[in-house]
Amino acid sequence: METLDASCLKIIKKRARNSHKGHYGRVLLIGGNEQYGGAIIMSAESCVKAGAGLVTVATHVHNHSALHARLPEAMVIDWTCQTLLKTLLKQSDVLIIGPGLGLNSFSLSLLAFVLKNQQKHQWLVIDGSALTLFAQEKLTLPFPTQTVLTPHQMEWQRVSQIEIAQQTVANNQAKQAALQAIVVLKSHQTTIYAGEIGTYLNPLGNPAMATGGTGDTLCGIIGSFLAQFSKEVTSVLAAVYLHSLIGDALAKENYVVLPTEISAALPLWMKKFEMG
Amino acid sequence: METLDASCLKIIKKRARNSHKGHYGRVLLIGGNEQYGGAIIMSAESCVKAGAGLVTVATHVHNHSALHARLPEAMVIDWTCQTLLKTLLKQSDVLIIGPGLGLNSFSLSLLAFVLKNQQKHQWLVIDGSALTLFAQEKLTLPFPTQTVLTPHQMEWQRVSQIEIAQQTVANNQAKQAALQAIVVLKSHQTTIYAGEIGTYLNPLGNPAMATGGTGDTLCGIIGSFLAQFSKEVTSVLAAVYLHSLIGDALAKENYVVLPTEISAALPLWMKKFEMG
Amino acid sequence: METLDASCLKIIKKRARNSHKGHYGRVLLIGGNEQYGGAIIMSAESCVKAGAGLVTVATHVHNHSALHARLPEAMVIDWTCQTLLKTLLKQSDVLIIGPGLGLNSFSLSLLAFVLKNQQKHQWLVIDGSALTLFAQEKLTLPFPTQTVLTPHQMEWQRVSQIEIAQQTVANNQAKQAALQAIVVLKSHQTTIYAGEIGTYLNPLGNPAMATGGTGDTLCGIIGSFLAQFSKEVTSVLAAVYLHSLIGDALAKENYVVLPTEISAALPLWMKKFEMG
Amino acid sequence: METLDASCLKIIKKRARNSHKGHYGRVLLIGGNEQYGGAIIMSAESCVKAGAGLVTVATHVHNHSALHARLPEAMVIDWTCQTLLKTLLKQSDVLIIGPGLGLNSFSLSLLAFVLKNQQKHQWLVIDGSALTLFAQEKLTLPFPTQTVLTPHQMEWQRVSQIEIAQQTVANNQAKQAALQAIVVLKSHQTTIYAGEIGTYLNPLGNPAMATGGTGDTLCGIIGSFLAQFSKEVTSVLAAVYLHSLIGDALAKENYVVLPTEISAALPLWMKKFEMG
Repeated sequence: METLDASCLKIIKKRARNSHKGHYGRVLLIGGNEQYGGAIIMSAESCVKAGAGLVTVATHVHNHSALHARLPEAMVIDWTCQTLLKTLLKQSDVLIIGPGLGLNSFSLSLLAFVLKNQQKHQWLVIDGSALTLFAQEKLTLPFPTQTVLTPHQMEWQRVSQIEIAQQTVANNQAKQAALQAIVVLKSHQTTIYAGEIGTYLNPLGNPAMATGGTGDTLCGIIGSFLAQFSKEVTSVLAAVYLHSLIGDALAKENYVVLPTEISAALPLWMKKFEMG
Repeated sequence: METLDASCLKIIKKRARNSHKGHYGRVLLIGGNEQYGGAIIMSAESCVKAGAGLVTVATHVHNHSALHARLPEAMVIDWTCQTLLKTLLKQSDVLIIGPGLGLNSFSLSLLAFVLKNQQKHQWLVIDGSALTLFAQEKLTLPFPTQTVLTPHQMEWQRVSQIEIAQQTVANNQAKQAALQAIVVLKSHQTTIYAGEIGTYLNPLGNPAMATGGTGDTLCGIIGSFLAQFSKEVTSVLAAVYLHSLIGDALAKENYVVLPTEISAALPLWMKKFEMG
Repeated sequence: METLDASCLKIIKKRARNSHKGHYGRVLLIGGNEQYGGAIIMSAESCVKAGAGLVTVATHVHNHSALHARLPEAMVIDWTCQTLLKTLLKQSDVLIIGPGLGLNSFSLSLLAFVLKNQQKHQWLVIDGSALTLFAQEKLTLPFPTQTVLTPHQMEWQRVSQIEIAQQTVANNQAKQAALQAIVVLKSHQTTIYAGEIGTYLNPLGNPAMATGGTGDTLCGIIGSFLAQFSKEVTSVLAAVYLHSLIGDALAKENYVVLPTEISAALPLWMKKFEMG
Repeated sequence: METLDASCLKIIKKRARNSHKGHYGRVLLIGGNEQYGGAIIMSAESCVKAGAGLVTVATHVHNHSALHARLPEAMVIDWTCQTLLKTLLKQSDVLIIGPGLGLNSFSLSLLAFVLKNQQKHQWLVIDGSALTLFAQEKLTLPFPTQTVLTPHQMEWQRVSQIEIAQQTVANNQAKQAALQAIVVLKSHQTTIYAGEIGTYLNPLGNPAMATGGTGDTLCGIIGSFLAQFSKEVTSVLAAVYLHSLIGDALAKENYVVLPTEISAALPLWMKKFEMG
């Protein structure tokens, strides 16, 4: 297992002078039911502020106004509108599903729709309740090597059938090898399982980040980096590391680190690590 | 009567490295009708920013969008949805009812529902209009020693039947002994009555805090501290003291201290007093 | 005519230690139709931030969510709800009507309702479209000496029947004597006509403040000062002067001074001038 | 082709002491359907913060609350309300149509309505989807020399029928001569075509600005400058230059420059360049 260090941030490359927003990717985020709208709003905030070129959120209409009030940079569609959803699924480079998605039959239908419509050139990030649904319904990933799962330990237990106490590196590696998807196993020591490419330990992070929304913010950054930088594990590693690096910096002065404060700090921190 | 000093903040302990949001408690806040939605929003803000791990607000649908626009970190449910309310009542560590609850029959039904469903392991904070309803309807507390009442003087008159002029320490102590609940009697010199544990005077606070919402913010901090730290009077004392300490700091430069500014300052001030 | 100077701010007195929010007045603001909701939101912001104890906004439901998203410290009612409106009219110390009120028959009915229900102990501030309605409909003030009109020059022409070019001090004084209400005639050199008490020139203010919402912000401060300090002309003078003083300070660094920035600065500036 | 420099900002003139909001123009912005509401919100933000006196947004009702929550300084109307739209079209000095307008038949009807009702004294800015509709439907400009088109390269291809690879200065000049409208051709090197007046190269701008909303923000500034300063090409040039100048300043510390951050900085930067 390799321990990550700041060198993983070298993927944050200087943008080419003659580039436009289209070069920084289209991300579609799907989530946010009537109860958990804040989750998808937080994911969208980190996704936009980490630099994705064009961000659209498919969520319950209940959440549209609050999303726009916080983040007019994002576009929004009613997640019950199949036609729009289909169009956006086609146009996107990266799909994120799960933050605040919920666990009912409609949530499941959305996840199934995404898994059915994912295309060869697209990466997919599965987070939050989508992981629970994925496990419960024994769904299949169409492009596992282009899929990132971001479970915390209990969600990983559901997905992997490995009890938390048995979640050893070896057991997790074996399960990841079967799944093939990249697994970001979130805990106070987040570990990234990427099959033959490697297993990585994030040495950063702190308990001030142990608050609702921290994971939603992380998955927005992962999606944003995949959209802008290489569609490879390296983008996932950098997202995990930077998220914790900012969290650690904020925790020096804050007893609790609000997820939205991490998002607000992204443009400044990415600039610090930009590679010439 | 003991006068509080900064030593009461020692309960703000350093978080364990290997902790997660579940360790910092689940709080359910109930309040916010069509007229007083801001009250519950302010309580939720202080509750989240004081570090509670997972915060859900049960409020009128009218208030959902504004809550999310300010605080995506909170979850929200429609307070008329009995099924969701029941589920959340079960899952929570701390219940807060009252800010902006209103005084109509529906408000009363919610309070009665909470008093009926409170469980042995849960603490309950009763604030604002819930105190008036509690007094009017002569309701009974299921777990009085796990209940915190946060009346201002007029609300305490309603609850205790003691006229403001007669609200002496001795009279208040006698009434508190009958009620058994912890009483945070808010005034320009807030006093906390905790039975045999003690009676405490908060020496801090200032008249710049004499504005709508200050109490809503306080009860959110109380609930947040009970959820994270010991479920004991010590958490209540620390919440009262810190709320005023921040208010005093802000009042040095501000003629009026907006309640939401106190909430915004919580992470910084809690860090200053964090115990190694 | 007397030119105002900073001595008029001496009414911003140090708050008494043993005071509570009830001592700083209840203000009811009425305005904000579907088109001009921002106006009443801006008035409410300045009213709260200038220190009024309890602020309620009666406005179109269309505007409730945005108000709460910006300012949870304010309470809100649907302005079509006669019962609530009547109750609040009774409880308030100061009434403000006009910002974004509109000019249709419903707007008129609200203004008529307020004029009919104003009580002896209450002060009334009439601003914006309410001034136009007042002029058009030749309405009568129940308590003219407890009424403040805040017209700009065109609105004053409607109210006074004096063409802008003829709005000399003498003409304005004569008309004010007939009306008896205090008149704050807004222009690049705002003048306050207060009958025998005096006529006052505000020497401050600048053209960076020439933007939509500046007047809405002013009337919120006037109402807030009347609610907290003496119910006298002195509160009106201080409000006008402070509004411009802050505007001048902000204009040193800003080409345009957003009204909401003036409101945000109120607590700091009031503290600077607080009288021991 | 002339390269712009800071001297183009000299049109940002010191405001006359005895001016009022009416002197700084009325702008009507039309855009923002259910999916792209953020676009028109961002345009309105830059328009207000660049100093336009009175700003009204005609947009889908879906977007009203978020607009007010962010920007109470703007007024708003339901874009399906023909009567109000007609009234506002008459009263405005500058019209902006396009940000988030969409491409359906209702979007088209709004564009057609604007083109039909534009008056001799009004300038019109056509942006975003309105450019695509204009091209598709082969619409005619009533006052081409008072019209500004702000296409990016793909939109210019639609309008001009010139493939991106063929968009040479000479080809663009020829097409602009036929159209007569001022063309702001947005790219990493934005060029402004103004017929016989000249062709201008904006030397500023950077790829941190390559994110959704940058163009919406620019067109709001263009409209705001046309409303306040000369109704001439000079206002367009200054808007383009200042937008990039602020973007360049923010990009020194930010990997991505959020469009709303450019808007927030407008009052400060305009003050720096204000001409005595």
